[in-house]
Amino acid sequence: MDIAAVNVLSYEDFVEVFGNVVEKCPLIPAAVWSCRPFVSVKAFEAAINEFIDALPESGKEGILRCHPDLAGRDLKSGTLTRESLEEQAVAGMDALSSSEAARMARLNEEYKKRFGFPFVICARMNEKAAILQQLSERCQNERIVERARGIEEVKKICRLRIHTLLLSDRTFKL
Amino acid sequence: MDIAAVNVLSYEDFVEVFGNVVEKCPLIPAAVWSCRPFVSVKAFEAAINEFIDALPESGKEGILRCHPDLAGRDLKSGTLTRESLEEQAVAGMDALSSSEAARMARLNEEYKKRFGFPFVICARMNEKAAILQQLSERCQNERIVERARGIEEVKKICRLRIHTLLLSDRTFKL
Repeated sequence: MDIAAVNVLSYEDFVEVFGNVVEKCPLIPAAVWSCRPFVSVKAFEAAINEFIDALPESGKEGILRCHPDLAGRDLKSGTLTRESLEEQAVAGMDALSSSEAARMARLNEEYKKRFGFPFVICARMNEKAAILQQLSERCQNERIVERARGIEEVKKICRLRIHTLLLSDRTFKL
Repeated sequence: MDIAAVNVLSYEDFVEVFGNVVEKCPLIPAAVWSCRPFVSVKAFEAAINEFIDALPESGKEGILRCHPDLAGRDLKSGTLTRESLEEQAVAGMDALSSSEAARMARLNEEYKKRFGFPFVICARMNEKAAILQQLSERCQNERIVERARGIEEVKKICRLRIHTLLLSDRTFKL
Protein backbone atom coordinates (compact mmCIF):
# COMPACT_ATOMS: atom_id res chain seq x y z
CA MET A 1 0.00 0.00 0.00
CA ASP A 2 1.45 3.39 -0.99
CA ILE A 3 0.46 6.82 0.24
CA ALA A 4 -2.03 7.32 -2.63
CA ALA A 5 -3.87 4.21 -1.43
CA VAL A 6 -3.73 5.47 2.18
CA ASN A 7 -5.21 8.81 1.13
CA VAL A 8 -8.35 7.27 -0.37
CA LEU A 9 -9.24 5.12 2.67
CA SER A 10 -12.50 5.92 4.43
CA TYR A 11 -11.97 6.90 8.05
CA GLU A 12 -13.33 3.50 9.04
CA ASP A 13 -10.80 1.57 6.96
CA PHE A 14 -8.05 3.99 7.99
CA VAL A 15 -8.74 3.40 11.70
CA GLU A 16 -9.08 -0.34 11.06
CA VAL A 17 -5.58 -0.41 9.52
CA PHE A 18 -3.69 2.26 11.48
CA GLY A 19 -5.73 2.34 14.73
CA ASN A 20 -2.93 0.90 16.87
CA VAL A 21 0.15 2.65 15.43
CA VAL A 22 0.19 4.42 18.79
CA GLU A 23 -0.55 1.72 21.36
CA LYS A 24 -4.26 1.70 22.33
CA CYS A 25 -4.68 5.28 21.07
CA PRO A 26 -6.89 5.02 17.95
CA LEU A 27 -7.92 8.61 18.72
CA ILE A 28 -4.60 9.77 17.26
CA PRO A 29 -4.72 8.21 13.78
CA ALA A 30 -8.47 8.91 13.73
CA ALA A 31 -7.64 12.59 14.29
CA VAL A 32 -4.92 12.84 11.65
CA TRP A 33 -7.29 11.36 9.06
CA SER A 34 -8.57 14.97 8.99
CA CYS A 35 -5.15 16.03 7.60
CA ARG A 36 -5.31 13.95 4.41
CA PRO A 37 -4.15 13.95 1.69
CA PHE A 38 -0.60 13.23 2.83
CA VAL A 39 2.08 13.99 0.26
CA SER A 40 4.21 11.10 1.52
CA VAL A 41 4.49 8.45 4.22
CA LYS A 42 6.85 10.84 5.97
CA ALA A 43 4.13 13.50 5.97
CA PHE A 44 1.69 10.98 7.48
CA GLU A 45 4.21 10.21 10.25
CA ALA A 46 4.82 13.93 10.75
CA ALA A 47 1.07 14.57 11.17
CA ILE A 48 0.94 11.99 13.95
CA ASN A 49 4.03 13.44 15.63
CA GLU A 50 2.62 16.97 15.43
CA PHE A 51 -0.66 15.85 16.95
CA ILE A 52 1.21 14.23 19.85
CA ASP A 53 3.46 17.27 20.34
CA ALA A 54 0.43 19.58 20.53
CA LEU A 55 -1.14 17.61 23.39
CA PRO A 56 -0.88 18.99 26.91
CA GLU A 57 1.69 17.27 29.13
CA SER A 58 -1.12 15.25 30.76
CA GLY A 59 -2.05 13.96 27.30
CA LYS A 60 1.51 12.82 26.64
CA GLU A 61 1.50 11.03 30.00
CA GLY A 62 -1.86 9.53 28.98
CA ILE A 63 -0.26 8.06 25.86
CA LEU A 64 2.53 6.50 27.93
CA ARG A 65 -0.02 5.06 30.38
CA CYS A 66 -1.74 3.22 27.52
CA HIS A 67 1.45 1.17 27.04
CA PRO A 68 1.98 -2.21 28.70
CA ASP A 69 4.98 -3.03 30.86
CA LEU A 70 7.79 -4.86 29.09
CA ALA A 71 7.67 -8.51 30.14
CA GLY A 72 4.75 -7.55 32.40
CA ARG A 73 1.34 -8.91 33.30
CA ASP A 74 -0.16 -8.43 29.81
CA LEU A 75 2.59 -10.57 28.27
CA LYS A 76 2.06 -13.25 30.93
CA SER A 77 -1.74 -13.23 30.65
CA GLY A 78 -1.83 -13.10 26.84
CA THR A 79 -3.59 -9.72 26.74
CA LEU A 80 -0.95 -7.76 24.82
CA THR A 81 -2.02 -6.20 21.51
CA ARG A 82 -0.77 -8.11 18.47
CA GLU A 83 1.77 -5.38 17.73
CA SER A 84 3.17 -5.29 21.29
CA LEU A 85 3.43 -9.06 21.44
CA GLU A 86 5.49 -9.17 18.24
CA GLU A 87 7.73 -6.33 19.40
CA GLN A 88 8.32 -7.79 22.85
CA ALA A 89 9.08 -11.20 21.31
CA VAL A 90 11.63 -9.69 18.88
CA ALA A 91 13.44 -8.16 21.87
CA GLY A 92 13.38 -11.48 23.75
CA MET A 93 10.98 -10.25 26.45
CA ASP A 94 9.09 -13.56 26.29
CA ALA A 95 12.27 -15.54 27.03
CA LEU A 96 13.86 -13.91 30.07
CA SER A 97 15.76 -16.01 32.59
CA SER A 98 14.19 -15.99 36.03
CA SER A 99 16.80 -13.54 37.33
CA GLU A 100 16.30 -11.24 34.32
CA ALA A 101 12.53 -11.44 34.80
CA ALA A 102 12.86 -10.57 38.49
CA ARG A 103 15.14 -7.63 37.72
CA MET A 104 12.80 -6.37 34.98
CA ALA A 105 9.78 -6.60 37.30
CA ARG A 106 11.59 -4.75 40.11
CA LEU A 107 12.81 -1.97 37.81
CA ASN A 108 9.40 -1.60 36.11
CA GLU A 109 7.79 -1.09 39.51
CA GLU A 110 10.47 1.39 40.59
CA TYR A 111 10.03 3.33 37.32
CA LYS A 112 6.23 3.46 37.56
CA LYS A 113 6.34 4.48 41.21
CA ARG A 114 8.76 7.31 40.44
CA PHE A 115 7.06 8.67 37.29
CA GLY A 116 3.41 7.59 37.31
CA PHE A 117 3.70 6.08 33.82
CA PRO A 118 5.43 2.99 32.44
CA PHE A 119 8.88 2.64 30.88
CA VAL A 120 8.44 2.85 27.10
CA ILE A 121 11.18 1.88 24.67
CA CYS A 122 11.15 0.86 21.03
CA ALA A 123 11.76 -2.87 21.60
CA ARG A 124 12.43 -3.54 17.92
CA MET A 125 15.46 -1.27 18.06
CA ASN A 126 16.95 -2.72 21.25
CA GLU A 127 18.10 -6.07 22.57
CA LYS A 128 17.33 -7.56 25.94
CA ALA A 129 20.52 -6.44 27.68
CA ALA A 130 20.24 -2.90 26.29
CA ILE A 131 16.61 -2.67 27.43
CA LEU A 132 17.47 -3.71 30.98
CA GLN A 133 20.37 -1.29 31.09
CA GLN A 134 18.30 1.63 29.78
CA LEU A 135 15.46 0.88 32.16
CA SER A 136 17.92 0.97 35.03
CA GLU A 137 19.52 4.22 33.84
CA ARG A 138 16.29 5.99 32.95
CA CYS A 139 14.91 5.35 36.45
CA GLN A 140 17.38 8.06 37.53
CA ASN A 141 16.07 10.78 35.18
CA GLU A 142 13.89 13.73 36.10
CA ARG A 143 10.19 13.25 35.38
CA ILE A 144 10.07 15.94 32.68
CA VAL A 145 13.07 14.43 30.87
CA GLU A 146 11.63 10.95 31.06
CA ARG A 147 8.21 12.02 29.78
CA ALA A 148 9.84 13.53 26.70
CA ARG A 149 12.08 10.50 26.29
CA GLY A 150 9.12 8.11 26.48
CA ILE A 151 7.26 10.12 23.83
CA GLU A 152 10.28 9.96 21.49
CA GLU A 153 10.18 6.18 21.87
CA VAL A 154 6.42 6.19 21.13
CA LYS A 155 7.18 8.00 17.86
CA LYS A 156 9.84 5.42 16.89
CA ILE A 157 7.43 2.57 17.63
CA CYS A 158 4.73 4.34 15.61
CA ARG A 159 7.03 4.81 12.60
CA LEU A 160 7.98 1.12 12.54
CA ARG A 161 4.34 0.04 12.94
CA ILE A 162 3.30 2.24 10.00
CA HIS A 163 6.06 0.81 7.81
CA THR A 164 5.15 -2.75 8.80
CA LEU A 165 1.48 -2.13 7.97
CA LEU A 166 2.24 -0.55 4.60
CA LEU A 167 4.23 -3.66 3.64
CA SER A 168 1.81 -6.27 5.00
CA ASP A 169 -0.55 -8.50 2.99
CA ARG A 170 -3.35 -7.73 5.42
CA THR A 171 -3.25 -4.06 4.52
CA PHE A 172 -3.09 -4.79 0.78
CA LYS A 173 -6.43 -6.56 0.98
CA LEU A 174 -8.34 -3.38 1.74
CA MET B 1 -16.76 3.34 44.93
CA ASP B 2 -16.60 6.99 45.99
CA ILE B 3 -14.21 9.71 44.83
CA ALA B 4 -11.77 9.01 47.69
CA ALA B 5 -11.44 5.43 46.44
CA VAL B 6 -11.00 6.70 42.85
CA ASN B 7 -8.24 9.05 43.95
CA VAL B 8 -6.08 6.29 45.41
CA LEU B 9 -6.18 4.03 42.33
CA SER B 10 -2.87 3.39 40.58
CA TYR B 11 -2.90 4.58 36.96
CA GLU B 12 -3.13 0.94 35.90
CA ASP B 13 -6.25 0.25 37.95
CA PHE B 14 -7.70 3.63 36.98
CA VAL B 15 -7.31 2.88 33.26
CA GLU B 16 -8.61 -0.66 33.83
CA VAL B 17 -11.80 0.74 35.39
CA PHE B 18 -12.36 4.00 33.49
CA GLY B 19 -10.48 3.27 30.22
CA ASN B 20 -13.63 3.20 28.08
CA VAL B 21 -15.65 6.06 29.56
CA VAL B 22 -14.92 7.75 26.23
CA GLU B 23 -15.38 5.03 23.60
CA LYS B 24 -12.05 3.45 22.62
CA CYS B 25 -10.14 6.48 23.95
CA PRO B 26 -8.26 5.24 27.06
CA LEU B 27 -5.79 8.05 26.37
CA ILE B 28 -8.32 10.50 27.85
CA PRO B 29 -8.88 8.96 31.30
CA ALA B 30 -5.18 7.99 31.34
CA ALA B 31 -4.37 11.68 30.84
CA VAL B 32 -6.73 13.02 33.51
CA TRP B 33 -5.24 10.62 36.07
CA SER B 34 -2.54 13.34 36.20
CA CYS B 35 -5.16 15.74 37.62
CA ARG B 36 -5.93 13.73 40.77
CA PRO B 37 -6.99 14.17 43.48
CA PHE B 38 -10.50 15.07 42.35
CA VAL B 39 -12.60 16.86 44.95
CA SER B 40 -15.77 15.17 43.65
CA VAL B 41 -17.14 12.94 40.90
CA LYS B 42 -18.25 16.15 39.21
CA ALA B 43 -14.65 17.38 39.23
CA PHE B 44 -13.51 14.10 37.67
CA GLU B 45 -16.10 14.53 34.90
CA ALA B 46 -15.07 18.16 34.47
CA ALA B 47 -11.41 17.15 34.04
CA ILE B 48 -12.38 14.82 31.21
CA ASN B 49 -14.54 17.47 29.58
CA GLU B 50 -11.77 20.06 29.83
CA PHE B 51 -9.26 17.67 28.28
CA ILE B 52 -11.64 17.06 25.37
CA ASP B 53 -12.38 20.78 24.95
CA ALA B 54 -8.64 21.59 24.77
CA LEU B 55 -8.04 19.18 21.87
CA PRO B 56 -7.68 20.61 18.39
CA GLU B 57 -10.73 20.20 16.15
CA SER B 58 -9.05 17.20 14.47
CA GLY B 59 -8.77 15.57 17.89
CA LYS B 60 -12.48 16.05 18.55
CA GLU B 61 -13.22 14.50 15.16
CA GLY B 62 -10.84 11.68 16.13
CA ILE B 63 -12.93 10.97 19.24
CA LEU B 64 -16.10 10.81 17.15
CA ARG B 65 -14.41 8.45 14.66
CA CYS B 66 -13.65 6.01 17.49
CA HIS B 67 -17.41 5.51 17.93
CA PRO B 68 -19.33 2.71 16.20
CA ASP B 69 -22.39 3.30 14.05
CA LEU B 70 -25.72 2.82 15.79
CA ALA B 71 -27.16 -0.53 14.66
CA GLY B 72 -24.10 -0.85 12.42
CA ARG B 73 -21.60 -3.52 11.46
CA ASP B 74 -20.06 -3.80 14.96
CA LEU B 75 -23.47 -4.59 16.46
CA LYS B 76 -24.13 -7.20 13.75
CA SER B 77 -20.68 -8.79 14.01
CA GLY B 78 -20.56 -8.79 17.84
CA THR B 79 -17.52 -6.49 18.00
CA LEU B 80 -19.08 -3.63 19.98
CA THR B 81 -17.46 -2.75 23.28
CA ARG B 82 -19.45 -3.99 26.30
CA GLU B 83 -20.55 -0.44 27.10
CA SER B 84 -21.75 0.31 23.56
CA LEU B 85 -23.61 -2.98 23.33
CA GLU B 86 -25.53 -2.25 26.54
CA GLU B 87 -26.35 1.29 25.45
CA GLN B 88 -27.48 0.29 21.96
CA ALA B 89 -29.63 -2.50 23.44
CA VAL B 90 -31.31 -0.09 25.90
CA ALA B 91 -32.27 2.12 22.95
CA GLY B 92 -33.61 -0.86 21.01
CA MET B 93 -30.92 -0.73 18.32
CA ASP B 94 -30.63 -4.54 18.42
CA ALA B 95 -34.34 -4.96 17.66
CA LEU B 96 -35.07 -2.74 14.66
CA SER B 97 -37.66 -3.80 12.11
CA SER B 98 -36.20 -4.37 8.65
CA SER B 99 -37.52 -1.04 7.42
CA GLU B 100 -36.11 0.78 10.46
CA ALA B 101 -32.78 -0.97 9.97
CA ALA B 102 -32.68 0.01 6.31
CA ARG B 103 -33.51 3.63 7.15
CA MET B 104 -30.86 3.71 9.90
CA ALA B 105 -28.21 2.27 7.56
CA ARG B 106 -29.06 4.75 4.80
CA LEU B 107 -28.99 7.75 7.16
CA ASN B 108 -25.76 6.60 8.84
CA GLU B 109 -24.06 6.43 5.44
CA GLU B 110 -25.42 9.83 4.45
CA TYR B 111 -24.22 11.32 7.73
CA LYS B 112 -20.71 9.83 7.47
CA LYS B 113 -20.35 10.88 3.84
CA ARG B 114 -21.35 14.43 4.69
CA PHE B 115 -19.24 14.88 7.84
CA GLY B 116 -16.40 12.34 7.79
CA PHE B 117 -17.32 11.04 11.25
CA PRO B 118 -20.21 8.96 12.59
CA PHE B 119 -23.48 10.10 14.16
CA VAL B 120 -23.02 10.02 17.94
CA ILE B 121 -25.91 10.27 20.35
CA CYS B 122 -26.35 9.27 23.98
CA ALA B 123 -28.48 6.18 23.33
CA ARG B 124 -29.40 5.78 27.01
CA MET B 125 -31.16 9.14 26.92
CA ASN B 126 -33.12 8.52 23.72
CA GLU B 127 -35.57 6.01 22.34
CA LYS B 128 -35.50 4.40 18.92
CA ALA B 129 -37.90 6.81 17.22
CA ALA B 130 -36.15 9.86 18.67
CA ILE B 131 -32.77 8.56 17.53
CA LEU B 132 -33.97 8.04 13.96
CA GLN B 133 -35.55 11.47 13.92
CA GLN B 134 -32.44 13.20 15.27
CA LEU B 135 -30.18 11.35 12.86
CA SER B 136 -32.36 12.54 10.00
CA GLU B 137 -32.44 16.13 11.27
CA ARG B 138 -28.75 16.34 12.18
CA CYS B 139 -27.75 15.24 8.65
CA GLN B 140 -28.83 18.76 7.63
CA ASN B 141 -26.50 20.61 10.02
CA GLU B 142 -23.26 22.35 9.17
CA ARG B 143 -20.12 20.33 9.85
CA ILE B 144 -18.88 22.65 12.60
CA VAL B 145 -22.23 22.53 14.41
CA GLU B 146 -22.41 18.79 14.13
CA ARG B 147 -18.87 18.26 15.41
CA ALA B 148 -19.71 20.26 18.53
CA ARG B 149 -23.03 18.47 18.90
CA GLY B 150 -21.36 15.04 18.65
CA ILE B 151 -18.85 16.02 21.34
CA GLU B 152 -21.67 17.13 23.67
CA GLU B 153 -23.19 13.66 23.24
CA VAL B 154 -19.78 12.06 23.96
CA LYS B 155 -19.72 13.96 27.27
CA LYS B 156 -23.22 12.76 28.20
CA ILE B 157 -22.26 9.16 27.39
CA CYS B 158 -19.08 9.56 29.45
CA ARG B 159 -20.96 10.90 32.45
CA LEU B 160 -23.40 7.99 32.46
CA ARG B 161 -20.57 5.46 32.02
CA ILE B 162 -18.70 6.95 35.00
CA HIS B 163 -21.81 6.79 37.16
CA THR B 164 -22.50 3.20 36.11
CA LEU B 165 -18.93 2.19 36.94
CA LEU B 166 -18.97 3.88 40.34
CA LEU B 167 -22.09 1.90 41.23
CA SER B 168 -21.01 -1.47 39.83
CA ASP B 169 -19.85 -4.53 41.77
CA ARG B 170 -16.98 -5.01 39.34
CA THR B 171 -15.50 -1.66 40.31
CA PHE B 172 -15.95 -2.29 44.03
CA LYS B 173 -13.68 -5.33 43.81
CA LEU B 174 -10.59 -3.24 43.10
